[in-house]
Amino acid sequence: MRISFCCSHTRAEPWLEGFRQALPGADIELWQPGAPAADHAVVWAPPQQFFDEQPRLKGVFNIGAGVDALLKLKPPAGATLVRIEDGGMAVQMAEFVAHAVVRHFRELDVYDREQANAHWEFRRPRVRKDYPVGVMGLGVLGERVAQGLLHFEFPVRGWSRSPKQLAGVECFAGAEQFDAFLRGSRFLVCLLPLTPETAGILNRENLSRLLPGGYVINVARGAHLVEDDLIALIDGGHLAGATLDVFRTEPLPPEDPFWRHPKITVTPHTSARTMRDETIAQIAGKIRAFERGEPIAGVVDARRGY
Amino acid sequence: MRISFCCSHTRAEPWLEGFRQALPGADIELWQPGAPAADHAVVWAPPQQFFDEQPRLKGVFNIGAGVDALLKLKPPAGATLVRIEDGGMAVQMAEFVAHAVVRHFRELDVYDREQANAHWEFRRPRVRKDYPVGVMGLGVLGERVAQGLLHFEFPVRGWSRSPKQLAGVECFAGAEQFDAFLRGSRFLVCLLPLTPETAGILNRENLSRLLPGGYVINVARGAHLVEDDLIALIDGGHLAGATLDVFRTEPLPPEDPFWRHPKITVTPHTSARTMRDETIAQIAGKIRAFERGEPIAGVVDARRGY
Repeated sequence: MRISFCCSHTRAEPWLEGFRQALPGADIELWQPGAPAADHAVVWAPPQQFFDEQPRLKGVFNIGAGVDALLKLKPPAGATLVRIEDGGMAVQMAEFVAHAVVRHFRELDVYDREQANAHWEFRRPRVRKDYPVGVMGLGVLGERVAQGLLHFEFPVRGWSRSPKQLAGVECFAGAEQFDAFLRGSRFLVCLLPLTPETAGILNRENLSRLLPGGYVINVARGAHLVEDDLIALIDGGHLAGATLDVFRTEPLPPEDPFWRHPKITVTPHTSARTMRDETIAQIAGKIRAFERGEPIAGVVDARRGY
Repeated sequence: MRISFCCSHTRAEPWLEGFRQALPGADIELWQPGAPAADHAVVWAPPQQFFDEQPRLKGVFNIGAGVDALLKLKPPAGATLVRIEDGGMAVQMAEFVAHAVVRHFRELDVYDREQANAHWEFRRPRVRKDYPVGVMGLGVLGERVAQGLLHFEFPVRGWSRSPKQLAGVECFAGAEQFDAFLRGSRFLVCLLPLTPETAGILNRENLSRLLPGGYVINVARGAHLVEDDLIALIDGGHLAGATLDVFRTEPLPPEDPFWRHPKITVTPHTSARTMRDETIAQIAGKIRAFERGEPIAGVVDARRGY
């Protein structure tokens, strides 16, 4: 079995070494133009030329949960696309979102500013049940994020394309329940895959349906958000603020107004990083299952977009 | 049954109203000098005169988990002292500590400072198993804090006076295991009761045993900490920083160096506030149990100090 590794953004050697240890029988090589045809590929943002030269690929394993960039390319018609489902990312996402929710709910950002003035004044505690959190996207990451918020006793609501049931979460599904989902949420966490249906979903019309003082956390893709709409709703007072980890252009350009908005927290796409060891173990396991003809999780449906 | 309410720091009327609803048969009054003798008292920082005038008290119910101030007074010899055990505080404490741990572990404070300079640069992810959290004090609050940290997959260690067993927590007990506890912890969370044995426990000798880059979170009492020792260990580089919610003098005086130390986060004793409804329900339930002669939880052992 031959496996080709084609990741444009990372140092290849420790990955190759890890895959060789995890799949001792396989021939694992860094892709170069003109390389022999492989059975499987491990990729992150490969060039189209890679797929053009690899017509025999059976499995294409994406290092990451989001496959929106991959679906803009043309992989070989017979290849199965598979995305990472956790790989150590879920717990990171859960703690990142919980930190942002707790920070706003407990007004710890306000206390930080007051520390700068040596000002001691505690604020009246907010009531937890008045701060329901709506989680958009209930895959592996969304479910783990919901668990983290339930652990701290927030009311949690979830919205997904197809109906789901999660213990302790009030679940909504599809376009017809989207309005009710939004109108009962004060925090809104976006964990959706980026597809033609979800692009721009964080827009003025939808965000204005949140409970007054709404707070937006986008940890999915920058293109989910209509930037000017968010700023208008914050400056107009309907929204209290936002934590944004993803942007249409990354790195976020220095002149972008998000950087300096006092109610917006910017982080550099760091909410959940791929952890090498967990990712190698997961992909190696899936390749073994694939070769044995067993079903594997995380297969991408190109029509659905994730 | 007569109950006297004597709390110096809070507006009494909603509390009295709540207790009257919760204990409809009882006579519940705000204490004033010369008031008739009561069977039970609900107190927060009462004057000694209160106890001197109330020799018949059977139960003294403290609004709060810490009874160090109460034990400096002389309650009637026959009175049972009872402290609040949760009253809505545990979840607040758990989320406050989790926020502080995640914020430092994920370097979200660093990203905040970089946002001010519109600087986009992600930092190499830290490895969770390298950041064990040591929790000092394993009562109701300490156990809930430990659960919050386990939820985010941190290695959690606990230390208490007497041996305890908590699922998923590596437990240490007593003076003889204190050194081993400290030497394996990078975060140190103080949730101890303040007693003669624990006063000043966060001192140079003990804090210097933490793993390099240690981070201190004090949410117990200001007198647990030796302030100059903490600052010396941070400035010397052995400790990375601290989050302090409690102080020897509160409000913290404007000239205190903690306010302006770049590696110390100060909050105004806000980590866990007493929630009125939960507290009234808990104390009313304990008074009913007391009157029926049933055992109740949270009874203070004055010799032990909590």
